[in-house]
Amino acid sequence: MEKIRIGIVGYGNLGRGVQYAATQNEDMEVVAVFTRRDPAAVKTVLPVKVEKMDAMADYVGKIDVMILCGGSATDLPKQSAEVVRLFDTVDSFDTHAHIPEYFDRLDAAAKEAGHVGAMSIGWDPGLFSLARIYFGSALSQGKTYTFWGKGVSQGHSDAIRRVPGVKDARQYTVPVEEALRRVRSGEEPALTTREKHTRECYVVAEEGADLARIERDIKTMPDYFADYDTTVHFISEEELQRDHAGIPHGGFVLRSGRSATGSRFLMEFSLKLDSNPEFTSSVLVAYARAVYRLHKEGKTGAVTAFDVAPKYLCPLSEAEQRRTLL
Amino acid sequence: MEKIRIGIVGYGNLGRGVQYAATQNEDMEVVAVFTRRDPAAVKTVLPVKVEKMDAMADYVGKIDVMILCGGSATDLPKQSAEVVRLFDTVDSFDTHAHIPEYFDRLDAAAKEAGHVGAMSIGWDPGLFSLARIYFGSALSQGKTYTFWGKGVSQGHSDAIRRVPGVKDARQYTVPVEEALRRVRSGEEPALTTREKHTRECYVVAEEGADLARIERDIKTMPDYFADYDTTVHFISEEELQRDHAGIPHGGFVLRSGRSATGSRFLMEFSLKLDSNPEFTSSVLVAYARAVYRLHKEGKTGAVTAFDVAPKYLCPLSEAEQRRTLL
Repeated sequence: MEKIRIGIVGYGNLGRGVQYAATQNEDMEVVAVFTRRDPAAVKTVLPVKVEKMDAMADYVGKIDVMILCGGSATDLPKQSAEVVRLFDTVDSFDTHAHIPEYFDRLDAAAKEAGHVGAMSIGWDPGLFSLARIYFGSALSQGKTYTFWGKGVSQGHSDAIRRVPGVKDARQYTVPVEEALRRVRSGEEPALTTREKHTRECYVVAEEGADLARIERDIKTMPDYFADYDTTVHFISEEELQRDHAGIPHGGFVLRSGRSATGSRFLMEFSLKLDSNPEFTSSVLVAYARAVYRLHKEGKTGAVTAFDVAPKYLCPLSEAEQRRTLL
Repeated sequence: MEKIRIGIVGYGNLGRGVQYAATQNEDMEVVAVFTRRDPAAVKTVLPVKVEKMDAMADYVGKIDVMILCGGSATDLPKQSAEVVRLFDTVDSFDTHAHIPEYFDRLDAAAKEAGHVGAMSIGWDPGLFSLARIYFGSALSQGKTYTFWGKGVSQGHSDAIRRVPGVKDARQYTVPVEEALRRVRSGEEPALTTREKHTRECYVVAEEGADLARIERDIKTMPDYFADYDTTVHFISEEELQRDHAGIPHGGFVLRSGRSATGSRFLMEFSLKLDSNPEFTSSVLVAYARAVYRLHKEGKTGAVTAFDVAPKYLCPLSEAEQRRTLL
């Protein structure tokens, strides 16, 4: 079998996840990992060549698709339009507010180079976006809801760690059961931020720190916590390691609506994930297959999950897809 | 706004549903209904021109997409390859075993005529097929399950009506809660037909009929009931009209799997529908939009939900889709 040759750019949780996920797909092989660090210092979870970022150009013709595993804040906005000049790419850019400009930049660079760049791939944006567009199209009159969790928010955990006196922290976003129940009942409620999610914080304080002040600082933090019902639990470092080492996540996309005669419909998609980055990686790998095939068909430019027909993701032939999955 | 001009071929529950669903989409208008019956005898739920089937050719240039609302047993296999010679089409062909040959025939006719024929559109096949292909692609190691119900099976209700002494009947397919629970738990069980669904039958018997014999005839009916735990309730005609007039349906597609490191993932898609035909109609209309756009881009041939990128279904521009739904 002809293998799709993958490069991994950036080697954190997501990069490791891609390396693992590729082993679950017979038509994939990881050729090299590219890092900003000293390659000799990067310990990979499975054997693979590690290269410096600027060695990438040497791999033209040896790698089909580069999966960009950096962060959305600084890595991806810099990297994606550069890498797509040399390779087809897939990334998980997830800063919603900047998606339009990111798309335009990637699209221009990809078209100029004759490559395909798949952006904002993962589960949200990604599979959840797919649920939103399919649900809204299939049922034009109705209301769509997205709930996240229960799961760890890295950004919120980091925000707590910046509070003076905090040694370490883990923050869970939790969907409010009562809100989910109301949506499922078909009443199409208008829900405030506070009504949709609560925030649970597990905090390891430094010795002698003022716990009441830490709790207040967290609960009143604008944007992150002030608009939510937030609970703060102080725990020991051992408890944090023992009970909160994982990075679980998940969530729900629901659409409730009705026909012109008043018949009610409820559509629901949910995910329950032991590991957020490992699942995202698994989706990235499927889109690497799609990008590889789209390129072969002569497609160029930026694409999102909305632009990719599902047949491109699946390793089966189109006839097999129809026979076994339709 | 330029409207997509729709024709409805066949005017049963599905045809009526399409007429209603089109009113919920501003970019659609229904131009005419085509029927095998005497057009004067067809009472439409909303005002629209009703024509005989053989008047269809007069509508070339006046209708963009024909939505075929006949049955899969005899209507669609005859009609689709004929109608696609004159128009783009959408249909809900759902006889799984015959999908490959149906596709080939429709594809050849559509390509010859320069049209697009979307087939097997609805929720299963259709949205459930999409869940199966997306889930399986996003998570290559795992097991996919489809459960149907609780909902009315027309085919099984008809089978009961053919039992001597039965005046009328309604059959519900019901997913087994315990089976759903086991799938959600991640154990990836092997489930028999009997373990997945039960069948509940509401039967109106003719006066003086042998109820025990009817019950036995139903429960032992091969293919339809023999492999299931079946319950038969005898009720009055009034009760059937009062409590079982609707055609609700729904179901679940689940995929349970794990990463190479053992992290577990659960993906679930579910539908709860007051009216099976009205929801199917709503999906057909969304794919009429897709077919219209694909044709404009020069695409020809048969397509299934697997071949259609989600962007084609949504009335929003691609930039708006990215801005609001991604």
